Amino acid sequence: MQETRLDTARIQAARQMIDPIFRNTPLYRCEALKPDLGCAVSIKLETANPVRSFKARGTELVASLLDGNGSRAVVCASAGNLGQALAWSGRGRGLDVTVVASRFAPAAKLDRIRALDAKLELVDGDFDMARERAAAIARADGIRLVEDSLDIETCEGAATIGLELVETAPPFDAVLIALGGGALATGVGHVMKALAPDVEVICVQPLGAPAMTRSWRQRRVVTTDSTDTIADGVAGRCPIPAVLDDLLLVADDAVLVQESSIIAGMRMLLDHAGLVVEPSAALGIAAILEDRDRFAGRHVVTIVCGSNVDVDAYHRWVGAAPTRTP
Amino acid sequence: MQETRLDTARIQAARQMIDPIFRNTPLYRCEALKPDLGCAVSIKLETANPVRSFKARGTELVASLLDGNGSRAVVCASAGNLGQALAWSGRGRGLDVTVVASRFAPAAKLDRIRALDAKLELVDGDFDMARERAAAIARADGIRLVEDSLDIETCEGAATIGLELVETAPPFDAVLIALGGGALATGVGHVMKALAPDVEVICVQPLGAPAMTRSWRQRRVVTTDSTDTIADGVAGRCPIPAVLDDLLLVADDAVLVQESSIIAGMRMLLDHAGLVVEPSAALGIAAILEDRDRFAGRHVVTIVCGSNVDVDAYHRWVGAAPTRTP
Repeated sequence: MQETRLDTARIQAARQMIDPIFRNTPLYRCEALKPDLGCAVSIKLETANPVRSFKARGTELVASLLDGNGSRAVVCASAGNLGQALAWSGRGRGLDVTVVASRFAPAAKLDRIRALDAKLELVDGDFDMARERAAAIARADGIRLVEDSLDIETCEGAATIGLELVETAPPFDAVLIALGGGALATGVGHVMKALAPDVEVICVQPLGAPAMTRSWRQRRVVTTDSTDTIADGVAGRCPIPAVLDDLLLVADDAVLVQESSIIAGMRMLLDHAGLVVEPSAALGIAAILEDRDRFAGRHVVTIVCGSNVDVDAYHRWVGAAPTRTP
Repeated sequence: MQETRLDTARIQAARQMIDPIFRNTPLYRCEALKPDLGCAVSIKLETANPVRSFKARGTELVASLLDGNGSRAVVCASAGNLGQALAWSGRGRGLDVTVVASRFAPAAKLDRIRALDAKLELVDGDFDMARERAAAIARADGIRLVEDSLDIETCEGAATIGLELVETAPPFDAVLIALGGGALATGVGHVMKALAPDVEVICVQPLGAPAMTRSWRQRRVVTTDSTDTIADGVAGRCPIPAVLDDLLLVADDAVLVQESSIIAGMRMLLDHAGLVVEPSAALGIAAILEDRDRFAGRHVVTIVCGSNVDVDAYHRWVGAAPTRTP
């Protein structure tokens, strides 16, 4: 294939720089999902770790490299999970971590960023406004700016999930990946195309935050004026050109799903897998729900990428007394 | 120490007989629990696998050995999790599995046993009545009876959790273990006493099902007439003498907790760890809640042993809209 910015050998080597607590995560068939979905579903669970998302795979690389070159401060914009992960990775290495986030981000995410000793600055706007503010801080203070999905460590950290999939999963037909900025999708997608090219790489984004999917379809950056989705972790308006270029090389498809399907997916993961997940982590199930015929009889891996969710909002979405499937 | 029925070398070897999907489970510090509990808590998560409990570690051993000696049928009594695990392990090896359970067991557990192609027989009584019926079936049909906690495979399978704790955990001070029949407690306890004797082994049982704890305290088998607890997975009335003998050698303490503490523990694991667990899996947190001074400033591992819970009952216990801790 044409080359992405990612490098498979570097991804292999990266594993040694990531705390083992974030690696070799559970991967297992969840048979209880099959009757409702019509296909075999395996879960790659990225939430059973100290930051409850996959993002620390990338921040471990960032922080290791900064620590190695003597840097002592770092700043990032975050929808919440990257900031929490960078705070965790930075704290362990004595780095001063500043996180810029939207004041509308889930309280669960903001609380944890503060609890991990990071400096948290809130902007009165969305994630893309936080990106601008983080860049300004980096310029003013002369410190490293971590840009999610653009910085290669964030993509190659996420890509280590792909290595685990190809090494330990029984043969599977497709992988469903939440699509936001693109680090997870380009990371896992790169590894699939390099090492398991028969696996279909399907990115999933909410209809209410479709910028990257539209960009992928039109093969050029398409921005949107706003986002409207509960899937806060993937709600961006301004795709990064270099990330889109990579995504064009590794994604076989990018699909958009409705909010109601995301909620139905969250509820299925609760009812049939016993998992509380944040909306972004239910995108894969939502994609199956919206196109059962496409997946019928196949074996699909979905990456459960985060579980940082406000419990009260979760109950509001998923409902207090889900009906059981007989 | 005096010798239990368990053998450390055999436990080491047992790991190779257990499907890797059940081994090397997540073990991580959950810092968000610390403010409310006053101690460092690490979670050993035994729910992210195809049967959502630790029980398959033991049934993998049972089924491997049966398969190896040409047996084709097996029966067990189960509160729900052992039966599901035996069904899973047996199905993969072509064994005919019969499970006897109480008709009052959670529907979520019974449904999964049926879905895994086991023959399910329900008794109009509790777990100890199911044990009698399973023994009768084994005698009548001349097939292997698996007796949870008595059969050494069930204890040594559970004991592999202990190996993972001593090999991968940062030093910790105590391990909190749900106490039912005793397989988990004697298994993990044996390994701790053999390989990490400074770790305090604390068993936790509901006040409403105190038979084994009372037996441990009185150093003789004490039975009860009934049980009254939501923690269905540990609700037995008739401790097994040989298991009590082992428990007396490996447990440093056995404590009883109230139902309200179990519910509070379940809610904390949801609010602060994003985990839906069955009541038995919250016993460790309940023990901390009831005796904060004992654990203050220490590092405690709690084994989250199962997540097979009826979602409607879960919501009824934990509440629809938990308040967030500021």
